[in-house]
Amino acid sequence: MQEVIVGVVGLGNVGLGALQILAENADQIALKLGFRLQVKVVCSRAPENKALPPELGGVMRTRDWRDVVTHPEVDIVAELVGGTGAARGIIDAAIENRKSVVTANKELMALCGAEIWDRAISAGINLAMEASVAGGIPIHAVLREGISGDRITGIYGILNGTCNYILTEIESRAAEFSAVLAEAQRRGYAEADPSADVDGHDARSKLAILAALAFGERITPSDIFTEGIRRISPVDFQYAATLDHTIRLIAAARQTPSGLILSVRPALIPKSTILASVRGAYNAVWVRGRYGEDTFYYGQGAGSRPTGVAVVSDLMRVAREIRNGSPERVSPFAHERLGEYQPIPVTLQNRAFYLRFRVVDRPGIIAALSRILAAKNISLDAVVQLPSESKSNLPFVITTERSSERDVREALGEMSGLDFLVEPPLALPIETAL
Amino acid sequence: MQEVIVGVVGLGNVGLGALQILAENADQIALKLGFRLQVKVVCSRAPENKALPPELGGVMRTRDWRDVVTHPEVDIVAELVGGTGAARGIIDAAIENRKSVVTANKELMALCGAEIWDRAISAGINLAMEASVAGGIPIHAVLREGISGDRITGIYGILNGTCNYILTEIESRAAEFSAVLAEAQRRGYAEADPSADVDGHDARSKLAILAALAFGERITPSDIFTEGIRRISPVDFQYAATLDHTIRLIAAARQTPSGLILSVRPALIPKSTILASVRGAYNAVWVRGRYGEDTFYYGQGAGSRPTGVAVVSDLMRVAREIRNGSPERVSPFAHERLGEYQPIPVTLQNRAFYLRFRVVDRPGIIAALSRILAAKNISLDAVVQLPSESKSNLPFVITTERSSERDVREALGEMSGLDFLVEPPLALPIETAL
Repeated sequence: MQEVIVGVVGLGNVGLGALQILAENADQIALKLGFRLQVKVVCSRAPENKALPPELGGVMRTRDWRDVVTHPEVDIVAELVGGTGAARGIIDAAIENRKSVVTANKELMALCGAEIWDRAISAGINLAMEASVAGGIPIHAVLREGISGDRITGIYGILNGTCNYILTEIESRAAEFSAVLAEAQRRGYAEADPSADVDGHDARSKLAILAALAFGERITPSDIFTEGIRRISPVDFQYAATLDHTIRLIAAARQTPSGLILSVRPALIPKSTILASVRGAYNAVWVRGRYGEDTFYYGQGAGSRPTGVAVVSDLMRVAREIRNGSPERVSPFAHERLGEYQPIPVTLQNRAFYLRFRVVDRPGIIAALSRILAAKNISLDAVVQLPSESKSNLPFVITTERSSERDVREALGEMSGLDFLVEPPLALPIETAL
Repeated sequence: MQEVIVGVVGLGNVGLGALQILAENADQIALKLGFRLQVKVVCSRAPENKALPPELGGVMRTRDWRDVVTHPEVDIVAELVGGTGAARGIIDAAIENRKSVVTANKELMALCGAEIWDRAISAGINLAMEASVAGGIPIHAVLREGISGDRITGIYGILNGTCNYILTEIESRAAEFSAVLAEAQRRGYAEADPSADVDGHDARSKLAILAALAFGERITPSDIFTEGIRRISPVDFQYAATLDHTIRLIAAARQTPSGLILSVRPALIPKSTILASVRGAYNAVWVRGRYGEDTFYYGQGAGSRPTGVAVVSDLMRVAREIRNGSPERVSPFAHERLGEYQPIPVTLQNRAFYLRFRVVDRPGIIAALSRILAAKNISLDAVVQLPSESKSNLPFVITTERSSERDVREALGEMSGLDFLVEPPLALPIETAL
């Protein structure tokens, strides 16, 4: 049976991983498909620097992505360049040339997924983006196929491996954020410019895509409240532990009667929840459905070969669809906003909060703080203070009952004037849904 | 756009759950598909006893499944009868009438999945069986689509919710198996005849299907070594805990250099593994791939609505395929055995074992037992004895280094003559792969 022809643009870790799998696992892939996947052209910046697996056979090498998207034999273009620059042009050109597209590009799909999907449908080609979220976890297949009959009410993800690695290191070694980050950078677990990871932007792009798939809604990164992990310190894990909780960067999309609340932020989660067992660079997604109840998915969040599996699995699915003559007909991103899934600001939600203060020790501090909270009708749940040497930088924690996030933020704003505060208070929601 | 017509045979919990979802979630399903799913005929034993959700509109009720499989408008038949009796006839007749089929029937698909799939392919229809394994966990979509590019090397599942509930109750309440089973039966968590569950036959059928999907191999229940949980008692959890392990009924398919080892049996698993956090009636599947490494899937193993989600998601996938004019072309069950996936007997594997004895206390017992083990070149790892009142029924445990299971069984056989043994020794493998 005739093969389906693949062209690859971008030969970074993911591209190399995918090509290695296509080469080594070719026979089993052909057994599953009933035909072979053949790579015929690969575009990379410096072809002379990177050899391809010999099992791939004769592959045309090029520096110009136009050679791939215009190659007469190519059926599927794998866009593995990433970013929002050249990638958009590559995908648009591929679609114009009626090539199907497999992409690992979270940033681009988060920003323009709906438009790209619409163009793919009108061009009558196929599109797949499994590798764009949570590398080795097949969460797209789960949401689009496996539980597509359910009505999703919430998603809670650990979607950035770098942040999860840093947080679990702070937790296990009681090391400060800056020290752990520096070591992660030395070991290559974190970028030289870490902000995309540690400030939550990477997880935000992934959540935008997952929420779109789960709710059939146009979600863009700007709909998502985003806060990073730079302020999390060992004392926060110590205090969280006294409350039987730990801290993770949680990407959450939850349905409420008034709309969707979307956030990427560090949160306290119960030690008993399975999400708390996710350590190091792993990713996980907890999905809550009205009918299927809770399901949980866990795996490598990144890495050449796990993400390569996602790309290859997408190539197989798209190749099958091409063979079946069944182009994309329905976008996973809905074309109008359904009221119940309208994103609303996090300030409209009621949550229990963990408030961590660092103060110059003196009498009357609790009184001053609790007066401000009381004025906003914020009820205290507990005041916790662990033994500490320092009188000049004394940490302690107040937890609140469920309160409006708007009120909590206003209260924290009013505290900014208090001269006994060494730094602004840290406020983390306490995740009670898990 | 014209709808796709569904006929349902069987109105038990799963059938009712699926119909409820089809009724309540019809609009979102139509949004995702681009057309509507319409139920036109439902077959059940006593239609007068079970009302259908009114939102379904006019549905023909019948006692005769032939009315469903021959209904001129029906595109997809959902076989929700279960078992290997009538179900086979229903599926065969549906295929003869060129209806696509969605089934939740693990027993039938485990026994005759390959044949049924071949018939579906030659008839040019579509077939889906997500609901046949691990109710709410979309493990079929994961294996067939999500990680289809990977090369699976091992599967470790908790696939029977009744057994997992019983084991976690024995663990948490230190209650005996028989007492916990009786209570589970009173509460309806276990059948009046519990053997399909507690003797491992249900999990065996599910593993046969998962292994077939994962390895593209014809696996039948007879290929799977199966042992139930009747002999597990609170002392086993106490001893397992001293080794930082717990006990679960593990359905495992692992690739070895000489072939596939398939088993359903209680095993010691480390408390640190995420599988150990699976409690109560939940199911979970741990998948290990050569490229994607470890992924883990968790959810409700049964229940009207979670399993209903699997049925409805299958109906959506099959309806999409029908619309796309793309019938099944490749069976998930391979048509020849690939050498590396040839099932081989568990006796050929080397494992560390937990051996629990109950003896009449007297001198020389350890000497007698270790002599027999030594004669088979089985090295002891540890001898553990917790304080006990009883001299006439004294439990203690020997753990072994990795040893041939054949040798261990022969050694246990030779022990049968020993008059100080109150009952035959209990041997559980210690799962080191997780």
